[in-house]
Amino acid sequence: MQKRSLKHVIFGKPIHERLAHHERLNVPFGLAVFASDALSSVAYATEEVLLVLILAGSLVAYNQLPPIAIALAVLLAIVAFSYYQTVHAYPDNGGTYVVSTDNLGSGAGQFAGAALLIDYVLTVAVSISSGVQAVISLAPQAQPYAIHIACAAVGILCFMNLRGAKESGIVFAIPTYGFIILILILIGNAIVTGVNSPQVTPNLPPHDGDPLHQMGLFLVLRAFAASCTALTGTEAIANGVKAFKPPEARHASQALVAMVVLLGVMFIGISWVAHHSGIVPMHSGTEGYKTVLAQISINQFGNGPMTWAIMIMTAGILFLAANTAYADFPRLASFIARDGFLPRQLASIGDRLVFQNGIILLSIVSIALIIKFNADTHSLIPLYALGVFIAFTLSQAGMFVYFRKRRWMVLKRKDLEANEENPVHTPQERIVAARKLAYKSYISAFGCLVTFIVSGILVVTKWEEKIWIVVIAMGVIMAIFTLISRYYKKLATKLSVTNEDTLPELTATTLLLVPRLHKGILQAIKYAQASSPDVRALHVSLNQKSAEKLKEEWIKFGVEMPLIILDSPYRSIVQPTTEYIDELLAKNKKRMVTVIVPEAVPNHWYQALLHNNAAIQLKLALAKRKNVVITNVRYFIEEPK
Amino acid sequence: MQKRSLKHVIFGKPIHERLAHHERLNVPFGLAVFASDALSSVAYATEEVLLVLILAGSLVAYNQLPPIAIALAVLLAIVAFSYYQTVHAYPDNGGTYVVSTDNLGSGAGQFAGAALLIDYVLTVAVSISSGVQAVISLAPQAQPYAIHIACAAVGILCFMNLRGAKESGIVFAIPTYGFIILILILIGNAIVTGVNSPQVTPNLPPHDGDPLHQMGLFLVLRAFAASCTALTGTEAIANGVKAFKPPEARHASQALVAMVVLLGVMFIGISWVAHHSGIVPMHSGTEGYKTVLAQISINQFGNGPMTWAIMIMTAGILFLAANTAYADFPRLASFIARDGFLPRQLASIGDRLVFQNGIILLSIVSIALIIKFNADTHSLIPLYALGVFIAFTLSQAGMFVYFRKRRWMVLKRKDLEANEENPVHTPQERIVAARKLAYKSYISAFGCLVTFIVSGILVVTKWEEKIWIVVIAMGVIMAIFTLISRYYKKLATKLSVTNEDTLPELTATTLLLVPRLHKGILQAIKYAQASSPDVRALHVSLNQKSAEKLKEEWIKFGVEMPLIILDSPYRSIVQPTTEYIDELLAKNKKRMVTVIVPEAVPNHWYQALLHNNAAIQLKLALAKRKNVVITNVRYFIEEPK
Repeated sequence: MQKRSLKHVIFGKPIHERLAHHERLNVPFGLAVFASDALSSVAYATEEVLLVLILAGSLVAYNQLPPIAIALAVLLAIVAFSYYQTVHAYPDNGGTYVVSTDNLGSGAGQFAGAALLIDYVLTVAVSISSGVQAVISLAPQAQPYAIHIACAAVGILCFMNLRGAKESGIVFAIPTYGFIILILILIGNAIVTGVNSPQVTPNLPPHDGDPLHQMGLFLVLRAFAASCTALTGTEAIANGVKAFKPPEARHASQALVAMVVLLGVMFIGISWVAHHSGIVPMHSGTEGYKTVLAQISINQFGNGPMTWAIMIMTAGILFLAANTAYADFPRLASFIARDGFLPRQLASIGDRLVFQNGIILLSIVSIALIIKFNADTHSLIPLYALGVFIAFTLSQAGMFVYFRKRRWMVLKRKDLEANEENPVHTPQERIVAARKLAYKSYISAFGCLVTFIVSGILVVTKWEEKIWIVVIAMGVIMAIFTLISRYYKKLATKLSVTNEDTLPELTATTLLLVPRLHKGILQAIKYAQASSPDVRALHVSLNQKSAEKLKEEWIKFGVEMPLIILDSPYRSIVQPTTEYIDELLAKNKKRMVTVIVPEAVPNHWYQALLHNNAAIQLKLALAKRKNVVITNVRYFIEEPK
Repeated sequence: MQKRSLKHVIFGKPIHERLAHHERLNVPFGLAVFASDALSSVAYATEEVLLVLILAGSLVAYNQLPPIAIALAVLLAIVAFSYYQTVHAYPDNGGTYVVSTDNLGSGAGQFAGAALLIDYVLTVAVSISSGVQAVISLAPQAQPYAIHIACAAVGILCFMNLRGAKESGIVFAIPTYGFIILILILIGNAIVTGVNSPQVTPNLPPHDGDPLHQMGLFLVLRAFAASCTALTGTEAIANGVKAFKPPEARHASQALVAMVVLLGVMFIGISWVAHHSGIVPMHSGTEGYKTVLAQISINQFGNGPMTWAIMIMTAGILFLAANTAYADFPRLASFIARDGFLPRQLASIGDRLVFQNGIILLSIVSIALIIKFNADTHSLIPLYALGVFIAFTLSQAGMFVYFRKRRWMVLKRKDLEANEENPVHTPQERIVAARKLAYKSYISAFGCLVTFIVSGILVVTKWEEKIWIVVIAMGVIMAIFTLISRYYKKLATKLSVTNEDTLPELTATTLLLVPRLHKGILQAIKYAQASSPDVRALHVSLNQKSAEKLKEEWIKFGVEMPLIILDSPYRSIVQPTTEYIDELLAKNKKRMVTVIVPEAVPNHWYQALLHNNAAIQLKLALAKRKNVVITNVRYFIEEPK
């Protein structure tokens, strides 16, 4: 293990930095790494609420923005409090999938897993689209290329993550803290300059006559549902407790509190400023489109350097937010795979190939979504929040069960180990501890109920806006989980070793394919000789002359191995070889035949085109034969550096 | 070898029927198989000559058609006579590449090989385009889809040949003899009905003013050059002598004579009929385009069943002509590869994979040409004949040298073996034999000279029509030949075994990757135990629990093999394994490490997605390590059928 650093130079780093926890994070860096997803959502959440409210065409509806922002902040506090408990209860891994599976059973875990997988894809699509809209607000001439820019951004993310570039906290810190500081300045400036002036009357478009768009409970709920996207990403810290410096739980919960406070302040602040300045959101794709945030900033600072900085930082933090999904998606998939609901190889996420497959899959699906929805945040948003809220609900239900169980254990059983957190030595202490756990369970239950209701609101109010796509996708993913799990279970039963099973007897025969005698195969000859007592060299003769020459050289060099020369009337190497192998197998059912094919390793990849690797052809030809092993012994044409 | 028939059922037949010579052909079937390429060219040759002649816009030019047809027939006779000699001199393989290489040296052989490779590609493109034009003559509404139909036809050829469908002589016989019979009827009918009527005056378009298009020697030579496409394919029989029933040379030469007579009669006949009926060729792509052959037929029989039959048979024989290139191209490539000018694996043409690669390459290049030239025979034709005439020239030059050498041997040396053909026992007999060989050499020299001059005419008169593409392509192919040959020679020097070379000493260590203990790996355990004295089971632990379970089972089952458990902090299977291997290699430089990876063979291909094959990842990760062999021992989840 001591040679790790050298390895990384050759293979790239083995795994995403956030998974590997090479260097543990302190609170400020942890906030930068894990909060970009949540904090970046203030870039679009206010706009989404306003886009619903202005449908009514009335100032009454428009004026619902501040109360909705406050309601959202309350919801955020509830969710955050529940996660605060989770962080302490599951310092190892408080991921929704694990919490749900552990406490509610595998079905609930799969449900949460499917919801989160969908959500990670949407995180990429929404964050990138929103980032592009920030760019367009700065440079309207980029509008026609929005989809191209978005796809290119996903491509860059994909490439960055495939290469496994080292991401230290500092890379996250610049746009995250830059964004936070600038937004706080923006809000502060607006309060100072605007608090004594009256609200600007917004220039609202008229009501379009659709009764669903009239001011009323449904519209307000729908606007509230739109605001819920601001909560996406709040689960990130609970998922990554282990990345913090010890004591992990304390540091993580500090970062969580900081994040939630910042998120609440920024969302309420931006909503207040937007409302006070009478900002009316524009529809993306229209000439001169600017995001609400851009409009606010131009209102405050003009279309100058400050606005440019805000837009650049916004695009930056959104890009980072998308990047977090590139760590979360393969990691979650690895947990699900470990439990047998996704292909088993996904579990070994530390292997580049596996990690890379996950990254490529995530990129392809995100790009498809971006193209399908024209890189328009507003069209993508309705799909977004449901997955997160399903996950919230299940996570908190899981925590409820967790606390109730522990309470029961504390009360009824003596064998619960005492520890620092639960000093349950005396009956008195036990009662205190049980009461504490009961309170915790009430909080989780309350959080669960609230997020469950919000999930319902999301489904109902966004049904028209294609949220059913998410419902169908959940069903499909759950079906895939079930099929895969069933396959593995059947396989395990079929392959399980019983008492009757013994190691099979076998006779080993090794065949060494010799095209001609050269330096490269000397090692293969020795290797073959060492591998079994029955070794034969096999030469398929495409022309008489070279076979004669090989025979001579074989004798002259004195190789102690019978040389078998097979004629090939149809100039095939594979056919005579397979026929010879079939004869060997037919003579002795217990025989295992190993075919050793010497393989040249050229200096340059294109030179490989000039070297035949008969092993591939033999493998194809012998795919259905049992007891045949085909193996390459390589020789290097130049010594490897 | 006795199980060949069963093999063919599983793998398809090992090689193209014409190469394998499963069943030897008699003369009529041999003619059907080998003559389609040559005979089909009468479908377009007359049209090509007329397209040049009408440029002058004068009847004088138009009237050059019959003399050009006769000149072409004379040229055909000269070439055929030379090939007649080749068939007898090289009954084994009279291919141009072999004859040129043997007698003129490798450079000439490569030149001929390059020319022929190009020509085979053009055979596909020209024949298919011409066949599509026959179809369009029948069904003008297909005109806009000409390129699509042509590409689809190449696709069908490609698929047919990839599958290796059995082609017996009868498949060739129907369109070939159908075409011959119908064309002879057409000519006969035209002679009977038209011989007493005067020539119809053609409705010639006016001269376009281009001085190059004026009636004169250049135009006549250019028209003659256009007629030379009729000779493409005449070399086919000389290349395939071995496919005939013994005595091969006699049967092949009979087929050659029959082919040449038929080709001459049909070409002169069609040209005469076209001239006598005053047919003016149309430019393909114009509304209501009909080939000259179609016009003649409609003239004779009206646009009825007889014309339809002629057009269908024309399309059929042209499709077959294209198909012949699918056998010729990979075969020629295999000869060139055997001599080290193309990748070595192409030499084992009997292997499906190799044969299939050749077929796919030929199809792709042909389709590119068809698309580039809009499936227009007239645009493709100028590229066509040059390759064949270069091959003719070199082949006959080769035969000249061959006959001179043999004459010299007969005259000067006694050690020439007497045989049936050369009963050179007495000095008198020797002089007679030498004289015969001298005559033969004169014929070859004359043929060589004539085809050389024609090659010159082709290059000069068709330079404007992009024949330079062929010249450049020849250069590129020759350069590739040279580079490949140089690489192989350098490699052979580097790898050649010297007296100092001995078999290297080595210590073998086998590592068996064990994810868990199940039925499938029992055989692998036994196999590993048999393969070397130092065998270790290796388990990479992604979670503690499963590692403990494996340890228990391993002891319980009583496997006599040390079990090494490697922790994987980053959840990678590959990394701990490679690190362990590196340690082993570092400890002992002479050690060879074999990693055995048990591999599940599922029942359905898509189930393979659910099975991890760590061997692939290990191979990638260890690509630069010497002394490492990675091998799969497969287990079948269901017994193979």
